[in-house]
Amino acid sequence: MSIITIVGAGMMGTAMCWPLADNRHEIRLVGTPLDNHIITSLQKDGFHPTLKRVIPDGVRTYHVAKLESALEGSDWVISGVSSFGVEWFACTVGAILKHNQNVLSVTKGLEDQPNGDLLVLPEATRRRLPLRIKDQIKLNAIGGPCIAHELAARRQTAVVFTGEDRDVLKWLRSQVSTSYYHISLSTDVVGVEVCAAMKNAYALAVGLAVGMMEAAGPDGLAQMYNPQAALFGQSVIEIRRLLSILGGSEENAVWLPGPGDLYVTVFGGRTVRLGKLLGKGVSFTEARQQMAGVTLESVEITTRVARSLPKLAKRGLLNMDDFPLLRHLDEIVNQGMPVDIPWENFRMDWL
Amino acid sequence: MSIITIVGAGMMGTAMCWPLADNRHEIRLVGTPLDNHIITSLQKDGFHPTLKRVIPDGVRTYHVAKLESALEGSDWVISGVSSFGVEWFACTVGAILKHNQNVLSVTKGLEDQPNGDLLVLPEATRRRLPLRIKDQIKLNAIGGPCIAHELAARRQTAVVFTGEDRDVLKWLRSQVSTSYYHISLSTDVVGVEVCAAMKNAYALAVGLAVGMMEAAGPDGLAQMYNPQAALFGQSVIEIRRLLSILGGSEENAVWLPGPGDLYVTVFGGRTVRLGKLLGKGVSFTEARQQMAGVTLESVEITTRVARSLPKLAKRGLLNMDDFPLLRHLDEIVNQGMPVDIPWENFRMDWL
Repeated sequence: MSIITIVGAGMMGTAMCWPLADNRHEIRLVGTPLDNHIITSLQKDGFHPTLKRVIPDGVRTYHVAKLESALEGSDWVISGVSSFGVEWFACTVGAILKHNQNVLSVTKGLEDQPNGDLLVLPEATRRRLPLRIKDQIKLNAIGGPCIAHELAARRQTAVVFTGEDRDVLKWLRSQVSTSYYHISLSTDVVGVEVCAAMKNAYALAVGLAVGMMEAAGPDGLAQMYNPQAALFGQSVIEIRRLLSILGGSEENAVWLPGPGDLYVTVFGGRTVRLGKLLGKGVSFTEARQQMAGVTLESVEITTRVARSLPKLAKRGLLNMDDFPLLRHLDEIVNQGMPVDIPWENFRMDWL
Repeated sequence: MSIITIVGAGMMGTAMCWPLADNRHEIRLVGTPLDNHIITSLQKDGFHPTLKRVIPDGVRTYHVAKLESALEGSDWVISGVSSFGVEWFACTVGAILKHNQNVLSVTKGLEDQPNGDLLVLPEATRRRLPLRIKDQIKLNAIGGPCIAHELAARRQTAVVFTGEDRDVLKWLRSQVSTSYYHISLSTDVVGVEVCAAMKNAYALAVGLAVGMMEAAGPDGLAQMYNPQAALFGQSVIEIRRLLSILGGSEENAVWLPGPGDLYVTVFGGRTVRLGKLLGKGVSFTEARQQMAGVTLESVEITTRVARSLPKLAKRGLLNMDDFPLLRHLDEIVNQGMPVDIPWENFRMDWL
């Protein structure tokens, strides 16, 4: 039995309470500065307002003001912040973390650098940690297909824990694994994290076809899965290309982190909701207004990677023509262009 | 403008009429011995009873008795038979084919040999062709995600034509390509065909989770996409392993033929219908009865490959433990076992 502090009471951070509670750990769930209303609700009756479920018995909840006491004596820490909270986590939480409090993160994203480099979040976090713990704390992360609602419902779920230290990974698995939460391990942090980040961009792409289908309506018996599948296949190959450029193992593109996570994200809520609006012909500006207040990781990762592509191309590291789908997403969300899938640019001849 | 004969008036063979008609070719659609009722319906009012759509103007239809005149003077031929019709095609159609009538096939499957070898269908067909044309005719095939109903509705569709001769492939593309039918090319026949065949087995696997979800009912807001995605990820990795063993390029496992085609097949009708029944707890025997008369490629390919696995393992070519999902499918459809997904056997450590 360990003491585990979850920092960030969003859906995914909170959902981690279930496997941890089933392993009889002492769980402390502490909100970020954005989570005050969630913590207030949890402290009233245990009900999580977006997860729409009462959290397991025994989980102690803390407002961010009590961050320090929530972390006091914890054996390890889960970071449940969104990609927008990485800096806050590294600076504010990092200032309190002890050198032996390893971190497991559910955050997905890549951070683009001025020269076009794309940093995985464990590395982006490390660079911001205080010197005193920077090289002591092991920063691990979770990839693979996991909708928070379903983890909280104890649905069968298979994920990948990634980090640089195999012994730490094995120990984390022994802490969290249950009969419904199946954990593979990988020391290929770049590979797992690039997939985890990119699936948000590409699920937006598949969502475009869902929106096109809904706008067109059924034509006789014909739905529109062919276009979705064409975009799905193109997505996987662009993810694999990016993996190879950024130094991740291509194996992730044929496993839970790539196609597995992309599959679940196509059913997973806000990303596809945006894709559908765009696919129906709503402009990005209008779609963004309709979804005001919703965190859109898909737009963030599309923008960051699209911003890096020309810089990486200039450095001779990639060919812009290898990413026609991602570039079109960028045109839609950042250049006000209408959806007009460049199908013929996806054509590939292996001759 | 060419004269093209489609042999086999099932859904996929018939759906090829649309891109061919849009290219203004002369199209002859001839039934197999199993298609007499279809041809009769088409000759009455042009309505295809399973595609539920009137075929394009100008397509000439033939009962199988008129096979010879249907093939007379054709520039090339589409084979629209199912995997159960490969022998009939090679022997009966092969007896009439001219040496310059190249074939493009929509058939999916693998043929297992007594020693465990798994032959792709173009090769299985070639071995049965009459000597006079055996090495003259180019046998090509189509992989990638394409639901027949949607092609007939001119939905955006991306496929891969595969064959050994790049010039023939390019010419076939020029004959069939339209603004909605996008054709990539690959000379990796084994790679494309193994994916095309295996996606039927693995879509059955993903279907199990859909059935489990429907049987369990919603739990609060939680659906069951996590288990589907876990099975999807495991499917892609088992397909990649088989590709590598059978000598196909692993690139297909990150492209239209692997995850793309698997994605569409999960939405594609009979395979998932069977998977859902099994996932709900219906025995295979009973499910088979409920689906009497329906061609189940998924059961056929599962059975054939599962029969080969131990033989290939004995020859030192593979490790049985690398295919836990396919083996469980075989237990369900051939050994009367209930669905009990071996989640923990999917666990993989890349350390």
